[in-house]
Amino acid sequence: MSLPPDAAAKVVADLELALHRAAMPVPVGVSVRHFHITEEHWRKVFGNVEPKKKRGLLQPGFWAAEETVTISGPKGKIERVRLVAPWRPKTQVEVSRSDAQHLGIDAPVKGSGKLAGAAPVTITGPAGSIEVADALIVAQRHVHFAPADAQRMRVKDGDLLRVRCGGGGPRETVFESCLARISDQFALEVHLDTDEANAAWVKNGDLAYLV
Amino acid sequence: MSLPPDAAAKVVADLELALHRAAMPVPVGVSVRHFHITEEHWRKVFGNVEPKKKRGLLQPGFWAAEETVTISGPKGKIERVRLVAPWRPKTQVEVSRSDAQHLGIDAPVKGSGKLAGAAPVTITGPAGSIEVADALIVAQRHVHFAPADAQRMRVKDGDLLRVRCGGGGPRETVFESCLARISDQFALEVHLDTDEANAAWVKNGDLAYLV
Repeated sequence: MSLPPDAAAKVVADLELALHRAAMPVPVGVSVRHFHITEEHWRKVFGNVEPKKKRGLLQPGFWAAEETVTISGPKGKIERVRLVAPWRPKTQVEVSRSDAQHLGIDAPVKGSGKLAGAAPVTITGPAGSIEVADALIVAQRHVHFAPADAQRMRVKDGDLLRVRCGGGGPRETVFESCLARISDQFALEVHLDTDEANAAWVKNGDLAYLV
Repeated sequence: MSLPPDAAAKVVADLELALHRAAMPVPVGVSVRHFHITEEHWRKVFGNVEPKKKRGLLQPGFWAAEETVTISGPKGKIERVRLVAPWRPKTQVEVSRSDAQHLGIDAPVKGSGKLAGAAPVTITGPAGSIEVADALIVAQRHVHFAPADAQRMRVKDGDLLRVRCGGGGPRETVFESCLARISDQFALEVHLDTDEANAAWVKNGDLAYLV
C-alpha cells in the first residue's frame, strides 16, 4: 500500500480534530412529521382562526401549535400532522421517507426552505383542503449551532459533518453529510427525522458526537 | 497525543482489511414488516387453508405468501402484514421501530428467533385473532454470508460488522454492529429494516460495503 507523503500528517490532524470534538456532545432532536404554512394557506385550511401555542421548541422562536392537519397522497393519508409556527413564506411539509412511502409520494431530500423540486401533497383541515405543488420534503440531516458552539467545535456554516449516534445502544450509527447551520438564533442540536432516529435507536436529548 | 507502540501496525492492518473488503460489495435487502408463524397459530388465524406462495426470496427456502394479517397494539394497527413461510417453531412478527411506535408497543431489537423479551402483539386474520406474548421484535441488523463469501471477505460467524450504505446518495450512513451470520443456506445480503433503509436512502439491490 503506497500513501502520499502527507498522509500521516493528515491522519494525525483528523484524529486530533476528532478527539477535540469528542469532548463536546451534541443533543439529538427528533423531527416528527410536521408542517410550516403561509398565512394565506392557513386561512384556506383553518379559516379565520389563529393557531394556538402548545409548546415551545428548543430552537428559539419556533413553537408547536395545537392545530394539526391530515396530509394525503395517492396511496394513503396521515392524520394529526402538527403545525410548527410562525408563518413561513412558503408552505412546507416535512415527513420521513417511511411516511412518504405510506402516502405514495416520491418526496426528495431537501434542506428546509429549499423547495425547488419538492413533491406535491394535499393538506386538509377543518375549513378546507389545498393541494400544494412544491411542499413535501424529507428534511436533510443538519446540525444547528450557535456561533460560540461552532467556534469551539471548529465548524463552519455549510460544512458537511459526520455524526455518531446511539453509542452504547443496539443500533449505533454514523450519519454522513449532516449539514452545519450556524445562526445566533440557533441552539446546539442535531436534527434527525424519525427514520434516522429509529435506525440509530435514539430519542430526543440523547447525545451524539461529531467524528 | 500518545499512542500504544503497536498503534501504527493496527491502523495499517485495519486499513488493509478495509481495502480488501472494499472490492466486494454486499447487496442490500430491505425487510419490510412481516411475520413468521407456527402451524398451530396459523390454524387459529386462517383456519383450515394452506398458505399460497407469492414469490421466492433471495434467501433459499424462504418465500413470501399471498396471505397477510392485521397486527395491532394499544395505539394503532397495521394492515397487510405479509407471511414469510415456511412454518416456524415460534411465531415472530418483525416491524420497524416506526411501526412499533404507531402500534404503541415498545418492541426490542432482537436477532431472528431470539424471542426472550419480545413484546406482545395481536394478530388478526380471516378466521380469528390471537394475542402472542413474546412475538414482536425489531430485527437486529445482520449480514447473510454463504461460507465461500465469508471466507473471501475474512468474516467469522457472529462478527459484528460495520457496513457503509447509500454512498453517492443524499444520506450515506454507516451502520455499526451488523451481525454476521454464515450458513450454506444463505446468499450474500445485508438485511436492513425500513427505518434503516430509509435513513440511508437505499433500496433492494443497492450495494453496501464492509468497512
